[in-house]
Amino acid sequence: MLYEKNFELQKRLSTAKFREALEKKLVDEDIISLLEKINSMENYFTTSSCSGRIVVMEIPDFGDKLNAKWLGKWHREVSIEEVKRAIAKHNDGMLWFMLHSPILHVGAKTLEDAVNLLNLAIQCGFKNSNIKSISHKKLLVEIYSTERIDIPIGKDGEIWVDDEYLEKIVEIANRQLRRAKEKLRKLENELEKLQS
Amino acid sequence: MLYEKNFELQKRLSTAKFREALEKKLVDEDIISLLEKINSMENYFTTSSCSGRIVVMEIPDFGDKLNAKWLGKWHREVSIEEVKRAIAKHNDGMLWFMLHSPILHVGAKTLEDAVNLLNLAIQCGFKNSNIKSISHKKLLVEIYSTERIDIPIGKDGEIWVDDEYLEKIVEIANRQLRRAKEKLRKLENELEKLQS
Repeated sequence: MLYEKNFELQKRLSTAKFREALEKKLVDEDIISLLEKINSMENYFTTSSCSGRIVVMEIPDFGDKLNAKWLGKWHREVSIEEVKRAIAKHNDGMLWFMLHSPILHVGAKTLEDAVNLLNLAIQCGFKNSNIKSISHKKLLVEIYSTERIDIPIGKDGEIWVDDEYLEKIVEIANRQLRRAKEKLRKLENELEKLQS
Repeated sequence: MLYEKNFELQKRLSTAKFREALEKKLVDEDIISLLEKINSMENYFTTSSCSGRIVVMEIPDFGDKLNAKWLGKWHREVSIEEVKRAIAKHNDGMLWFMLHSPILHVGAKTLEDAVNLLNLAIQCGFKNSNIKSISHKKLLVEIYSTERIDIPIGKDGEIWVDDEYLEKIVEIANRQLRRAKEKLRKLENELEKLQS
């Protein structure tokens, strides 16, 4: 397969980009050591990632994600006050409160390498992991988990939920985020074992 | 690859299961013609599917999906009354209102067949499509879209949201379901064109 021939080049390019992002402090702190680990392995490299996040965003037209506006985004547990301050910025469109699981995209050298990583990720609790794409350039594994919250909480400047409800969903989101991030640690440990 | 050698057998087994499910009326009505189309193609067969659904469910312990209980499940748009009747059955655990996008699992003969179907599905709006698994038995493509709602609406018998809020989320869920199901029609049309 052509992606196999392009692997060394793609790994070099992606690793350089990763180094640059690290220098510019664009990488989520709590996923850096896992990304370093993967990039240190001979047959893999990372292309993009998010360590999991809690989000308040508004989407102008239904499903028009291109024009979505982040009102709050945290790669850690949040307080109700932080969420309320983000909500206060709401102007128009549909207002959402969301929890997004960690997500990693990893280039693999061969199909066998891809399947090995995929199966390991599933074992570590990343049950929605898959092979995201195969092109002449890259064979990409997506490491992804099931934790997810998508709650419409207002529209066009109107807020639909009260503080009491917000407190409950913030607590649930914090708990899910904690659980999802534990899986990142687990995956890192398992990769460590593979190499030793 | 071994899955290629097993393809004819797996297609035969899966097609027989599909026929049986059809006879027992276990297949969602509005996805049958798409499944028939895929199964009529030489290099593909379907293994499981859901045409998209709106769900009210309770999950006893956090994340314990094995013991989740369906209080309401509809593969079509719903009325606020239906949703309220489902919610009235809530007893304990966490209560969720959800919208799940259509999902199809399709066995492909070769990696090239899998990538072709994957790319076509993405073009038709199924942006979360991927290669779900590769084993000696099967190479499975997952056709999956982005529409999704996951709202905690109560816990241990207590309901956290009022009727006004329920009306809003039911309307949003109905709209998302409609949009997701249109993608099923689009995919069916594109597959039709491929064959003609």
